Amino acid sequence: METDGLLEGIRDRRIPALAKAISLVENGRDGYELLLSELHPMVGNAHRIGLTGPPGAGKSTLAERLIQGYRARGKTVAVVAVDPTSPFSGGALLGDRIRMESVTLDPGVYIRSMAARGAVGGLATTTTEVCDVLDAFGFDRIIIETVGVGQSELTIAASADTSVLVLVPESGDGIQVLKAGVMEIADVFVVNKADRPGAERLVQEVDVMLGLRSGNAYRQIRPHHSVREMNGVQHSEEQSEGWLPATLMTVATEGSGIDELIEALDAHHAHLSDSGELHERRRARLERHTRDVVDRSLSTLVWQRGQGEQILESGLERVVTGDVSPYRLAQEIVAGALEGGDDIEG
Amino acid sequence: METDGLLEGIRDRRIPALAKAISLVENGRDGYELLLSELHPMVGNAHRIGLTGPPGAGKSTLAERLIQGYRARGKTVAVVAVDPTSPFSGGALLGDRIRMESVTLDPGVYIRSMAARGAVGGLATTTTEVCDVLDAFGFDRIIIETVGVGQSELTIAASADTSVLVLVPESGDGIQVLKAGVMEIADVFVVNKADRPGAERLVQEVDVMLGLRSGNAYRQIRPHHSVREMNGVQHSEEQSEGWLPATLMTVATEGSGIDELIEALDAHHAHLSDSGELHERRRARLERHTRDVVDRSLSTLVWQRGQGEQILESGLERVVTGDVSPYRLAQEIVAGALEGGDDIEG
Repeated sequence: METDGLLEGIRDRRIPALAKAISLVENGRDGYELLLSELHPMVGNAHRIGLTGPPGAGKSTLAERLIQGYRARGKTVAVVAVDPTSPFSGGALLGDRIRMESVTLDPGVYIRSMAARGAVGGLATTTTEVCDVLDAFGFDRIIIETVGVGQSELTIAASADTSVLVLVPESGDGIQVLKAGVMEIADVFVVNKADRPGAERLVQEVDVMLGLRSGNAYRQIRPHHSVREMNGVQHSEEQSEGWLPATLMTVATEGSGIDELIEALDAHHAHLSDSGELHERRRARLERHTRDVVDRSLSTLVWQRGQGEQILESGLERVVTGDVSPYRLAQEIVAGALEGGDDIEG
Repeated sequence: METDGLLEGIRDRRIPALAKAISLVENGRDGYELLLSELHPMVGNAHRIGLTGPPGAGKSTLAERLIQGYRARGKTVAVVAVDPTSPFSGGALLGDRIRMESVTLDPGVYIRSMAARGAVGGLATTTTEVCDVLDAFGFDRIIIETVGVGQSELTIAASADTSVLVLVPESGDGIQVLKAGVMEIADVFVVNKADRPGAERLVQEVDVMLGLRSGNAYRQIRPHHSVREMNGVQHSEEQSEGWLPATLMTVATEGSGIDELIEALDAHHAHLSDSGELHERRRARLERHTRDVVDRSLSTLVWQRGQGEQILESGLERVVTGDVSPYRLAQEIVAGALEGGDDIEG
């Protein structure tokens, strides 16, 4: 069995076992669900941080700086760099860039790139599972870096405890694009490359947008210099319960603003923990994940273990000619899968 | 039965029957798959055109102009305006805007808005099915307008015969964002609002990008004035087989460039038809759709007809505490569904 010794290896925090376990999970090889099942009781201690934003926003450099900052604070860090787009995107993912950097020699740091494979749902589910392995291994922080700001990135980012949206002054015109969806799920906004013209204006735009979203004019006039000013104190009665998204400025290449970002991330985690929302998010994530595993099992049952592919192949021509509908053919495929689906162990 | 008379109504090209059929499909009400099954032999004559691009690119105005252009040529046109994002996007969808315009009084035009519901895959599948209804009804052209340029828009656009990516000079800086994914699936590129500064430069950028993509320096120096210059003649041996994406400039508000766009769309359709690719795309779409219907049937089997929700609800707490893994609970849910899954009619 390929999984022999992996559970023990991860318990003993051996990196080769970790790497092997992640490959097993990523490629869905025999026994991967069993391994994940055994790791499950060890999962739940890492702070998972999603880094989302348009290409060129400096996410990878920011991730490097976060690694350094966390290491200086004695925390171990794993990075999962995910590219849900095609090979054409020319990925400047951290995992690809950093191989030869000194940080990879530090046993308290682990970096892994994941490419797109199969369906969007598939990649998000697998990303969660890779994070579970890293979590079980004992990393204190897991940074999930994604390329782009589409639906699949949102789905992936939504699995993090804290979502960071990274923008740059140049993305000002594109803020319309970001408006839909991304804004709603971010807990912390970072305007990176903040030494460039337009950074202040972008911070204001983001705040106006957030203000519009919550219908709260206050947000548009608050200062942006310290997270603690915003989140350490209560601002008004109706806000005392919720998290007020932080907007920060960084220059990742120079390392400026990183301490403040780490403070913001810690503050958000403390907020989640104190308010009980961490438990709620974890519960929601596990529910979502169980649903995804069910859908994946059914899909495997039909398309890999069942006769699905054969029935589809032999029936498709009749669908193309119009003699048989896709619905009729789908019925045959489902019926075929259920007949042969007695052994669903896995 | 809610479907009574719908098939006949669509055969007789009655608009109330069409509207009712689309609602039935959109909401997945009883009998919708049976109706789609019966309509299947009538599907396959419409030219499906996807309109994708960032918010503010003028897609809706462009769609209006296309409607006018097609009507002037005696063609009937349906528009399906899809918003896969959340309510926050504040959709400026054609369907929402145009209700009171004169074009809606023309029986040769039908416009329908679709909001996001459920999963991404769900919306794409349902959009295909709504297009199938419109196709069976007999519309000559079906324009599928989406908001945004994310993964879900790509999935939806990929179901069209011809994909149009609409850009504006202002999106120049954001072209990086568009690079990943969208560029690859577009057959026609439109730089709208081409009377604004930067239009020529954007056309050049798009061409450079397309040139880089195909590794073909020729593309960077060709003229942009007529589609026929590009696609009516053979350019070189290795290109004679494929479609050379057209890059066009329009000012939709003034109606300029629309005739050229319609020519480009017709040229692409002729190319697809002549090369046999139309048949291949249709076949691929039907295969994809059959797979989607299978997955949807299985999901329905578990979550709506089966005991999935109850088993999940009663078992989730043990997953949260770590006593039971998501994989074990998922197994119980699948097993429960298969036991009770004898009657999968529908």
